[in-house]
Amino acid sequence: MDNLKIFIAKAVEVKPILSVLSTKIKNEVLKEMGRRLVKYMDHLIKENKKDVELAQDNKLSPALIDRLVLNEKRIKGMSDACVSIAELDDPVGEIVWGVKRPNGLEIRKVRVPIGVIFVIYESRPNVTVDAASLCFKSGNVALLRGGSESFNSNMALVNILKDTLRAFSLPQNAIMFIPTTSREAVKQILKYNDSIDLVIPRGGENLIKMVTEESRIPVVYHAKGVCHVFVDESADRQMAENIVINAKTQRPGVCNAIETLLVHKKYKGTRELLTRLNKLKVQIRGDKNIKKIFPKARLAKTQDWSEEYLDLILSVKMVKDIDEAIEHIKKFGSAHSDAIVTKDFNNAQRFVSEVDSAAVYINASTRFTDGGEFGFGAEMGISTQKLHCRGPMGLEDLTTTKYIILGQGQIRE
Amino acid sequence: MDNLKIFIAKAVEVKPILSVLSTKIKNEVLKEMGRRLVKYMDHLIKENKKDVELAQDNKLSPALIDRLVLNEKRIKGMSDACVSIAELDDPVGEIVWGVKRPNGLEIRKVRVPIGVIFVIYESRPNVTVDAASLCFKSGNVALLRGGSESFNSNMALVNILKDTLRAFSLPQNAIMFIPTTSREAVKQILKYNDSIDLVIPRGGENLIKMVTEESRIPVVYHAKGVCHVFVDESADRQMAENIVINAKTQRPGVCNAIETLLVHKKYKGTRELLTRLNKLKVQIRGDKNIKKIFPKARLAKTQDWSEEYLDLILSVKMVKDIDEAIEHIKKFGSAHSDAIVTKDFNNAQRFVSEVDSAAVYINASTRFTDGGEFGFGAEMGISTQKLHCRGPMGLEDLTTTKYIILGQGQIRE
Repeated sequence: MDNLKIFIAKAVEVKPILSVLSTKIKNEVLKEMGRRLVKYMDHLIKENKKDVELAQDNKLSPALIDRLVLNEKRIKGMSDACVSIAELDDPVGEIVWGVKRPNGLEIRKVRVPIGVIFVIYESRPNVTVDAASLCFKSGNVALLRGGSESFNSNMALVNILKDTLRAFSLPQNAIMFIPTTSREAVKQILKYNDSIDLVIPRGGENLIKMVTEESRIPVVYHAKGVCHVFVDESADRQMAENIVINAKTQRPGVCNAIETLLVHKKYKGTRELLTRLNKLKVQIRGDKNIKKIFPKARLAKTQDWSEEYLDLILSVKMVKDIDEAIEHIKKFGSAHSDAIVTKDFNNAQRFVSEVDSAAVYINASTRFTDGGEFGFGAEMGISTQKLHCRGPMGLEDLTTTKYIILGQGQIRE
Repeated sequence: MDNLKIFIAKAVEVKPILSVLSTKIKNEVLKEMGRRLVKYMDHLIKENKKDVELAQDNKLSPALIDRLVLNEKRIKGMSDACVSIAELDDPVGEIVWGVKRPNGLEIRKVRVPIGVIFVIYESRPNVTVDAASLCFKSGNVALLRGGSESFNSNMALVNILKDTLRAFSLPQNAIMFIPTTSREAVKQILKYNDSIDLVIPRGGENLIKMVTEESRIPVVYHAKGVCHVFVDESADRQMAENIVINAKTQRPGVCNAIETLLVHKKYKGTRELLTRLNKLKVQIRGDKNIKKIFPKARLAKTQDWSEEYLDLILSVKMVKDIDEAIEHIKKFGSAHSDAIVTKDFNNAQRFVSEVDSAAVYINASTRFTDGGEFGFGAEMGISTQKLHCRGPMGLEDLTTTKYIILGQGQIRE
C-alpha cells in the first residue's frame, strides 16, 4: 500500500517536466526507442520465450499463445510504430479556439497533456510500446499494467524504453510499469483520483466491468462491438455482397467486424448473399423468415442479437422497413459501428441521423473504424462511450485544454 | 425502485425525438418558455412562498433563504435566460472535422446530443430553468434533481416548462424532475449507467464527493475554486492593486474570486496593497514575512493555503521568485483560475505554460472565468476536471460527436 503510494507519487512528479518537453526532443526519443527495439531484438525474444513457455506449461489456448509471441516481424512492427508516432503532429500547444473580447481580453483555448494516464491491458506485448509512445508523444506520463502472462516481455520492453529516456537525460518515470500482477493492486490504484487523471482499460468485458465499477478516476473504455449492416430494399446487390462479406469475414475477431446482418424483406439478393457467406464458412443464425428462404440457417435465439461472436458466425434478421432496422440496432447494438447499404437518399439520411453509434456508414464496410484508416496514424483504442472522446482515440484525445487569457489590466465591472 | 426504473426509462424513450428536433422549433419553444415564466409570475411567487416559509420555520440562514427567494426581477432573469439560450447557435449538427480519404471515403465528425443528462443541484431555483433550457437547446433530455428546500418552486417551474412542451406537441418527458428529496434515490439513479449518459453535480464539496464516489455514470463536476494572483517583481503597481482588489472583493462568494495572493519579495507595493485591501474590510492572513511588513495580518496556518473562504478573507504569501509561486499554486491550488501580474515576458510565458489550471491569466482578474464573459452566452457550470471539458461549460460541452462515413461501396483490403 505505502509502496504503491510512493510509486504513483513518482509518476505525478514527472508531469510538469513532460508537459513542457519540446516536440523535437519527443520525436528524437521516439525514433531512438524504435532503433533500440530492433537493436535488442535477441534479448526481447529471449525474455518473451519465458512467457511463452510458461503459457505452454499453463496450457493457454494456441490463440492466446499466438498473441503473446514476439518474433522479428512483430518487433519490427513495434519499432515502426514508434517512428510513425514520432512523425505525427504534436497535439500539445495547438490553439483550438480563440477570441478577442470587446474588453480587449484575448482568450485562447490551448491543448495540453492530460497528466498521468493509467493503461490496463491484456496479453499482447505490443500494447506496451504503443501505449507508452502515444502517452509520451502527447506529453503524458504512462502508467502501464499489462497482462500477467506477458510479464517478462513487458518488463524487457519497458526497460528498453526507460534506457532510451535515460540516454536523453529524461526522467525514466515518464514510463512506468506496475511491477505486480495483483488485481487488488489495480483496484487500489483506481482510487487515486487525485494523482491519476485518466484510466484506459483495453481488454475483455470483465476487465471493463471491474474498472468502471471500481474506478474513481475518469475512464475511457471500449465496450463490445456488436456491429450491423442493414441492406436496404434499393441496395446494389454487388455492393451489398462485397460490404457484408468484407465486414464479416475479412477479420472476424476484431470489434469493427459485423455480428448481425439486417435485410429488407424486399431486397432481392438475400438468398445469394447468404449462400456466398456460407461458402466462406460463415455460420448463419437467422430468424424465421430467413430460415424460410435459407433453410441451412440455424434459428437465432434472442441472445444471438446482442452477442459479439468475434468469429465466423452471423445473425441475420429480415426487417419490414428501415424503421425496424433502426429499432433493432438501438435495442441490440453496442453503438460502435453500423452501416446501411442503399441507393435511397432519404433512408441514407435517416440512418446516419437516427443511429446513435460512434461511427455510422453509408455504403461502406464497418471495418474502417480504425485510427489508421481514419488518418490518425495510431490509436489508443476505440471509445464506445460518449464523454471526452468517441470512436478511434488518437493523440488529440490524450490531451485536454486550458484557457490562456492575455490582458492589459482588465478587471470585472 | 421499480418506479425509479420506469421513470428513467421514460427519459430514455424521449432521446431519439429530442436528438433530431430542428433548431427552429427548439428556439420557438425556448422563447415561449420565457414568455410563460413571466405570464405565470404570480403563481410562481405563491409557490415559492411555501418554500420560503418552510425555510424560515426550519431556521435556515438568511443567506440561504435569500438564494431561495423568487421575485419579479429574478423571474424576469430566468425568462431572459430562456430567450438568450434560444439566440445561441445550436451546436447539434456542426461538422467539427472532415476528410476525404485516399480511398474516396468521406469522413465527417458531427456534433450530436449526449442523451440523458442528470443535473443535481442545490438551493437556487433558477438552476432548474438554466439546466432545462441548456439541455433542451443541445437536444438532451434533462433529468433534474434540485434541493429539497426549493421543492415547491422547482415543481412550479418545471410544470410551466412541461406545459410549453405540450403546447408544441412535444414529449413532456424531455424535462423531468425527480419527485423525491431522498438522497438514497439519487444514489440509486447514479448506478443507471446504461440509461443516463452524464451526471453534472452543482453544489458544495459534500455533494461532489458523494456523486463521484457513488456514480457509475461519467461525471463532470466543479470542485472548489482556490484561485491565486501572483504579483511579480516587475508588476505595475496600479494594475496589480486593481486586479487583486477586483479578484478578491468584487464578489467574494464565487468560485473565480481569489483566496490567496502571492507577492514577489522584491515587489515594492505590498504594504500599500494590503492596506487598501484592509480598508475594504478584507481580513489578511499572511506568512511571517507578510506579518513583518503588515503587522495587522493574522498569521496564516497551513490549512489557510488550501481554504476556499468564499468571504472577505485573503491568505497572503511572500515568495522569493516565480518558481516558488508556481510551486505554491501546484501544491495548494485547485486548478481553477490563476493569474500573474507582470511586465516580464519570460515570466508571463512560464506562468501560463507551467500552471496547469482551467484558466490562466496574464494581467487580468480571475473573475472573468465565466461562460458569459468568455462569450459562450450561458454556462452549465465550470469544470475543474480534465476529461470531456475544462473551464466554463457551454452548450457545445453538452454534446458528443459521431463519425458519419459516406462511401461508394468501399471495403477494407
